[in-house]
Amino acid sequence: MKTIQISNIVNGVDVAKLTQTIDSLTKNTDLAKFHFCAKNNWISGGENQTTINEFYGAGKKHVRSKPFVYTKDEPPILLGSDHGANPVEYALTALAGCVTTTLVYYAAAMNVIIRKVESTLEGDIDLRGLLNIDENVKAGYESIQIKFKIDSDAPKEVLEKLVEIAKKHSPVANTVTNATPINISLV
Amino acid sequence: MKTIQISNIVNGVDVAKLTQTIDSLTKNTDLAKFHFCAKNNWISGGENQTTINEFYGAGKKHVRSKPFVYTKDEPPILLGSDHGANPVEYALTALAGCVTTTLVYYAAAMNVIIRKVESTLEGDIDLRGLLNIDENVKAGYESIQIKFKIDSDAPKEVLEKLVEIAKKHSPVANTVTNATPINISLV
Repeated sequence: MKTIQISNIVNGVDVAKLTQTIDSLTKNTDLAKFHFCAKNNWISGGENQTTINEFYGAGKKHVRSKPFVYTKDEPPILLGSDHGANPVEYALTALAGCVTTTLVYYAAAMNVIIRKVESTLEGDIDLRGLLNIDENVKAGYESIQIKFKIDSDAPKEVLEKLVEIAKKHSPVANTVTNATPINISLV
Repeated sequence: MKTIQISNIVNGVDVAKLTQTIDSLTKNTDLAKFHFCAKNNWISGGENQTTINEFYGAGKKHVRSKPFVYTKDEPPILLGSDHGANPVEYALTALAGCVTTTLVYYAAAMNVIIRKVESTLEGDIDLRGLLNIDENVKAGYESIQIKFKIDSDAPKEVLEKLVEIAKKHSPVANTVTNATPINISLV
């Protein structure tokens, strides 16, 4: 008897695997607990480097295919040497990736075929917060605007629903829109 | 008559320029308004690419020395091809860079000489939030732990003060610890 393999890849996402993942996390909630980490080294001035190499999830440690190393720096006007995007630009990069992947995975699960997803992210920061010039000025982004352009034959209301799901269920968007505690210490 | 140039570089930060910047932003608060942006393109499945190229600040547009392009992807267990760190790891990368730069710039302004700054960042995410398995589970980081190791001759209480300043004044830390609104739309 022959085994027939049915491939069900939608938007580059293996929907059979996605469904299996959801089933196993529903049955064993401990498998849903993921622990992510990053190691950072300061170079000089506004330049520093982060290495991402391993994480813990689904009950075990996972090592990436290679360590991913990211350089952050400031442009000259912010007293840096422009060797990389700066941290607030990395924050937009993280958010862009997260809402996009969330949208694409949900679209796959809903069998909505997507050809293209483009987005622009924008945010305002008043440097008086960072520099402690005015105690009443927020140091971070006042708000962040995300505009999606999606190429798909799905009706507009389905795409609007997907955009809302992306905002609600994206881990990075959720981290930003809720007040997420940071515990900082010196060792 | 000879002009004597006095260089005052502490921790790789030009303290004279930093002081000038603070002075000019205090006098003309419009110069403190910065606008950052990112463009994102989906590749396939969990892979997407963000380009950082320009920003607006101190009254004009600035173009980076080159466009900075960052690939995000998911590891196999999260149904990706492992071509880059994933968005929640990029979020830790952004945060690591921001608290480090904030700490180093403040140390420079306080004339605290620093030889090395290392940090580890860790955070837990329960995937049941992302996957909508349980409405009561937060999709984002429950909290984020940052541990700093600083090599400096400064007294421990000065370094502890710097770590607290970094948490309070870092734009990315501030964005995360306060509920920052995200406006998302389909164009």
